[in-house]
Amino acid sequence: MPLRHFLTTQDYSRAEIDALLDEAAAFKRSPLGRQMAGKSIALLFFNPSMRTRTSFELGAFQLGGHAVVLSPGKDAWPIAFAPGEVMDGEAEEHVAEVARVLSRYVDLIAVRAFPKFKDWAEDREDRVIKAFARYATVPVINMETITHPCQELAHALALRERLGNLQNRKYVLTWTYHPRPLNTAVANSALLIATKLGMDVTLLCPTPDYVLDERYMQAGYENAKASGGSLKVSHDIEEAYRGAHVVYAKSWGALPYFGRWDEEKPIREAYRHFIVDEAKMALTDHGLFSHCLPLRRNVKATDAVMDAPYCFAIDEAENRLHVQKAVMTSLLGQP
Amino acid sequence: MPLRHFLTTQDYSRAEIDALLDEAAAFKRSPLGRQMAGKSIALLFFNPSMRTRTSFELGAFQLGGHAVVLSPGKDAWPIAFAPGEVMDGEAEEHVAEVARVLSRYVDLIAVRAFPKFKDWAEDREDRVIKAFARYATVPVINMETITHPCQELAHALALRERLGNLQNRKYVLTWTYHPRPLNTAVANSALLIATKLGMDVTLLCPTPDYVLDERYMQAGYENAKASGGSLKVSHDIEEAYRGAHVVYAKSWGALPYFGRWDEEKPIREAYRHFIVDEAKMALTDHGLFSHCLPLRRNVKATDAVMDAPYCFAIDEAENRLHVQKAVMTSLLGQP
Amino acid sequence: MPLRHFLTTQDYSRAEIDALLDEAAAFKRSPLGRQMAGKSIALLFFNPSMRTRTSFELGAFQLGGHAVVLSPGKDAWPIAFAPGEVMDGEAEEHVAEVARVLSRYVDLIAVRAFPKFKDWAEDREDRVIKAFARYATVPVINMETITHPCQELAHALALRERLGNLQNRKYVLTWTYHPRPLNTAVANSALLIATKLGMDVTLLCPTPDYVLDERYMQAGYENAKASGGSLKVSHDIEEAYRGAHVVYAKSWGALPYFGRWDEEKPIREAYRHFIVDEAKMALTDHGLFSHCLPLRRNVKATDAVMDAPYCFAIDEAENRLHVQKAVMTSLLGQP
Repeated sequence: MPLRHFLTTQDYSRAEIDALLDEAAAFKRSPLGRQMAGKSIALLFFNPSMRTRTSFELGAFQLGGHAVVLSPGKDAWPIAFAPGEVMDGEAEEHVAEVARVLSRYVDLIAVRAFPKFKDWAEDREDRVIKAFARYATVPVINMETITHPCQELAHALALRERLGNLQNRKYVLTWTYHPRPLNTAVANSALLIATKLGMDVTLLCPTPDYVLDERYMQAGYENAKASGGSLKVSHDIEEAYRGAHVVYAKSWGALPYFGRWDEEKPIREAYRHFIVDEAKMALTDHGLFSHCLPLRRNVKATDAVMDAPYCFAIDEAENRLHVQKAVMTSLLGQP
Repeated sequence: MPLRHFLTTQDYSRAEIDALLDEAAAFKRSPLGRQMAGKSIALLFFNPSMRTRTSFELGAFQLGGHAVVLSPGKDAWPIAFAPGEVMDGEAEEHVAEVARVLSRYVDLIAVRAFPKFKDWAEDREDRVIKAFARYATVPVINMETITHPCQELAHALALRERLGNLQNRKYVLTWTYHPRPLNTAVANSALLIATKLGMDVTLLCPTPDYVLDERYMQAGYENAKASGGSLKVSHDIEEAYRGAHVVYAKSWGALPYFGRWDEEKPIREAYRHFIVDEAKMALTDHGLFSHCLPLRRNVKATDAVMDAPYCFAIDEAENRLHVQKAVMTSLLGQP
Repeated sequence: MPLRHFLTTQDYSRAEIDALLDEAAAFKRSPLGRQMAGKSIALLFFNPSMRTRTSFELGAFQLGGHAVVLSPGKDAWPIAFAPGEVMDGEAEEHVAEVARVLSRYVDLIAVRAFPKFKDWAEDREDRVIKAFARYATVPVINMETITHPCQELAHALALRERLGNLQNRKYVLTWTYHPRPLNTAVANSALLIATKLGMDVTLLCPTPDYVLDERYMQAGYENAKASGGSLKVSHDIEEAYRGAHVVYAKSWGALPYFGRWDEEKPIREAYRHFIVDEAKMALTDHGLFSHCLPLRRNVKATDAVMDAPYCFAIDEAENRLHVQKAVMTSLLGQP
């Protein structure tokens, strides 16, 4: 029986996702335990982190375990990933050894590895975490690569807390402006989880260039079909916001311009008005708002929106702690 | 009832300071406990640290708790602090979110944020830690900004250990040379705590340009009045050292030249002779010596002084561990 | 009675080494305990680390203790080491204070400090760790300087696991190519431990320029004499591999060219064929292979060798965890 990882929620059934959320809610009510006594997790960060690192580290601690935080290329050796590579470049070590050795030390390996933003055809292969999953002999957890499944669970738990039944609630995933081209991971993830949970999802973005990768669009359509929800794309701000129960914001770079960001920059600049503000939120049906954080205030959403009672970004961030405990203990409990 | 922080000893009465020192002395006698079992503290370092980080991390561990160490801008996201800021610069995240999210994860937040050394009018507002204190919903601890209250307590505990009653003992805070303009934080702090504890304090510095900010001078005069101590400024090395019971050394940049350090550099160079050496210490009344560390040997104090039995810098550094446990458990015990 | 450190296995008798290995084997069978409850270790990394840092940090955790990880010059202050130094350069702090202060906080200090690769006459003095050992009042552990004794123990434990009795087994330490001149530490260490354990050791390297420092060659000859083993140098690949029971690979820079690496580079380039491959391993007597890691695949050893059942590099890496627990608890148990 193959080892089970937590790489994407698409590998988990609706029932399994619900069970993880139930377990997370239980950890939220009762945060301390011994479920990870003597156990450990390696947190490998190829990119910065605040919430993810803190919540995993504390989650392990609160259950009696320990997290080791490693930054390959900074405080640890740079790593090669290609099979058969003749390693005469920068990398001192191959993922085959890193994953196998860490598997001897720790009980879980979690990896954050953002795209390199040069070539989407390569980045969409998600090679770093797949390589860890191939060589590791302990479960591997995705801490954000080209999807962000831990964020999905935290978001879903917060939605459940605020709305109860999510079936056919109107959910708007809106692109927003950001001075830099950002990862599509959280946008892909929002689309996956909202369709999986049966919501009526509108992906709002300035032009077709900002639609997400077809892999995630297709998965969203299939999820929606299975869950009784729906998915559509809109470029009309007013139509998208009107009657929404949830607005979730994220910025990302347009995939057709991937790696040619200088060309995309002036296009992106023209869409600063996608900022989430009170006027747009007034179009919703008492809509809730959230964002995965970090968020640039008054660029992606205004102060008024961030500080409104309908903003649940802080709750969602808190839930990272609870859902990750559920993921860790679930993976550790494999037969 | 507002949340109590530990931002400056000026917010604490003499009786409260004495109680913290008593508690610290108790931790020194009996270092292990469960007072922080399941509790956690976030240590945010905007600047390097050795003693502060080690002592907080171990203090939490020895009481059953856990410290998460974060370096915003290095391994975590850079942070914006101004209210209402349109965040289209470097910062990816606002302190409003950082402080609120961390407050959901941890029980205490500690912050080190040195001045930027460009504009004293701005740096003296101490905006970073004040912003954390404003947005956090858990107590905030100052790990050095423009004062260093944890160092004050460690210093005070060491003074009490060596001298017993401190009332009207002659205390010299001497400026020393350092190749770079340094923070006034520890100097401000030494002045605050020594006057609060009733000592007769002489601030020895080369010229009036090296006198500390009027806020701290004024607080020192008021503390001295309340405690029966005294405070005066001297530019005469021999007069200052003569009869001293304690010499505390620190280097700092002259405030009138703040941000124009090229102009101050040749002035500072002329005062290398402020180094603490055996000849100066011989003028004291069997005087003790200390420094907050890190210290440049043979620049700020000679090897002979650092290695003399009257030097208690190592004891003072050790006391960081004990006083910080007292601060953490005191803040956690709030009603 | 002077404090005992773990700086080199040469300070430990054969019986003491065997006792450490027995203790390590016991920890491998039973990894969790309370032997370090309330105890702590400072891990000072002047250079990157993955295995060393993870295994020490987890070793302490699994025995109830805590490791504080410090990177002087990055997240902590840069340090001066010379006695009597007038510290007006980069260093903010002298090892005298660092070692004394850390000794007040923690129960053990571990140091990684690679050579600077400029001047071997200076690097071979191993001043950094010696300075820590001189000033510290707690035991100091070598995490790799110009030897790597923790790696030695992990290697020895893996050899014992695979071969049982090591006496007069043929052991080949082979130089391999690497694009950069590397530290001789692990090579020195392999030579020390293999001769100490009574093996018949061949040091295989391209030319006499690649022979190790006379200090370690001499110690190897003396060890071999005492243990009934042997040590010889060979530049003949086929002769060296033939009949070998163990092949251990490492790359290092040629000492006569130390600091003049541009001159050594073309020489080194001519010896890429020292790579460990299946053809060479076929010359051995069912020989085992290992490397300390990190290893550049297809530069130092081929994929086929690394993935072969006779490769025990992963076991050796795992053993770091077990042997370091033995070292830590042994040092903590000093009278």
